[in-house]
Amino acid sequence: VNLLVVGSVAFDNIETRAGEGKRLLGGSATYFSLAAAPFCTSRIVAVVGEDFTPEYEEVLTNRDIDIEGLQRAKGLTFAWGGTYSENFETRETQFTDLNVFADFSPELPASYRDSELVFLGNIQPSLQMDVLRQIDNPGLVAADTMNLWINDNREELLEVIRNIDILFINDEEAFLLTGRYPLLKAASMLLEMGPDRVVIKRGEHGAFLFGAGKNFYVPAFPLDDIVDPTGAGDSFAGAFMGYLAQEEELNDESFRKAMITASAVASYTCEGFGVEKLKRLTPEKVLSRSEEIQDLTSI
Amino acid sequence: VNLLVVGSVAFDNIETRAGEGKRLLGGSATYFSLAAAPFCTSRIVAVVGEDFTPEYEEVLTNRDIDIEGLQRAKGLTFAWGGTYSENFETRETQFTDLNVFADFSPELPASYRDSELVFLGNIQPSLQMDVLRQIDNPGLVAADTMNLWINDNREELLEVIRNIDILFINDEEAFLLTGRYPLLKAASMLLEMGPDRVVIKRGEHGAFLFGAGKNFYVPAFPLDDIVDPTGAGDSFAGAFMGYLAQEEELNDESFRKAMITASAVASYTCEGFGVEKLKRLTPEKVLSRSEEIQDLTSI
Repeated sequence: VNLLVVGSVAFDNIETRAGEGKRLLGGSATYFSLAAAPFCTSRIVAVVGEDFTPEYEEVLTNRDIDIEGLQRAKGLTFAWGGTYSENFETRETQFTDLNVFADFSPELPASYRDSELVFLGNIQPSLQMDVLRQIDNPGLVAADTMNLWINDNREELLEVIRNIDILFINDEEAFLLTGRYPLLKAASMLLEMGPDRVVIKRGEHGAFLFGAGKNFYVPAFPLDDIVDPTGAGDSFAGAFMGYLAQEEELNDESFRKAMITASAVASYTCEGFGVEKLKRLTPEKVLSRSEEIQDLTSI
Repeated sequence: VNLLVVGSVAFDNIETRAGEGKRLLGGSATYFSLAAAPFCTSRIVAVVGEDFTPEYEEVLTNRDIDIEGLQRAKGLTFAWGGTYSENFETRETQFTDLNVFADFSPELPASYRDSELVFLGNIQPSLQMDVLRQIDNPGLVAADTMNLWINDNREELLEVIRNIDILFINDEEAFLLTGRYPLLKAASMLLEMGPDRVVIKRGEHGAFLFGAGKNFYVPAFPLDDIVDPTGAGDSFAGAFMGYLAQEEELNDESFRKAMITASAVASYTCEGFGVEKLKRLTPEKVLSRSEEIQDLTSI
């Protein structure tokens, strides 16, 4: 099964209580595809600038990620800097240089048109729709979004949501988008907007799966040390979709197992700066932590 | 098995998005003993004033709660007023009239001295110790606390913690008391302070059990509507201890089942103003919701 992701590739400057990292390879498409890598190869649609040197490219190609859809543009790669508070509850953006990402117009190589699993990472909703239209016959489409699009591009976002199978969203965005409280009411309204399933991410408090099948909850794995939570949400989605991509057949149980796998991979992401821990992640490690997560709630 | 609780009995004025209630029977000992009522009778040590009329008393005695240790003092009962924000994330205290609670000196009736399970509700730590000293041979002692005692009565609190088996504490208090982050590190340090087990409550995000046996996590039940979260933490502890009181034998599994039972009862508490839902709670209802909670994390 072919898994496609559209999103950002970025250079991140990150500062946390554990230290700091500069020009770390980041971006939603990067985290997503590396998190999926223990399970399946994925195809990336994104844009980078002239400063995206072979050493960065190799982080992706070393994990068999297909970068034919990685556009090269004149100028610099999207760059972002952020500082996390002591307990990681908030983060302050130091700078956001969109650079080549500002004019990103996703165009899929012909070889990507047969993609079966699609993840529309957190980019402008009309661009998400552009990508979707270029795929012949997608089997399962998921999308992520953020408060910026909820506030400024609501109608386009609603069109995306009507056309997808799974919405990934965090709890605050769910409240913002629906105006409903508590979570169960917000989830019901999101499901009425179109998707069969909605995954509500709650950071260090785990994630809920609502919709087709029974409601399901996975805790976040309690870590002894958090180094850098950047990309945990994209890693969650990447591992979720990657797990589904390698399943013979998808049933309700597959989605629940995908949730546990996703939580496991997201926890690894938080244990290193940037994609450090994802680069070396093996299916065995993921399985081992998945079992630990299941054990947390088993009597 | 005899379960004793020391804590407050209060009249609460509560305002939430769902409405408001005035002079609702509340207080930690009230919530605790009513939450334990589906499983066992409990003995209350607390103080009330002259305004504590028979109708309030009957809320307790109707559930076979032993009120021999309920002291009557001249003056008014402890009264508290609070307003919850729209999404229940914060609450503002409108007033705190300690009244007779200001001079509370817990004295146990002779009939209480053989109590086997003991819960030291959230009162001044030196009073918690006074209660403990009046019990002949307690089998299992648990205690709750709050930021006020952590900040102002730290040494006395540490003495309590050295002398108990289970500490109930919320995540913010755990960080405050230990200065450690993340949760796992805070929990380790709390366990070094004395107790065999620590239960870290996280409100709508569930609760962790650390210590003897494996780490265990129970989610909060996702409610369609939250009416009033007051007393959810005390209900959690009451159901937890009540569940243990009716077990033939205590092993690690008993504590995990107690966690699920506690989460179930705490969720019922949030569905009504004050103790409204607890007054009528049956073992069957608790079991049914406990099964729903287990189902949330089962594949």
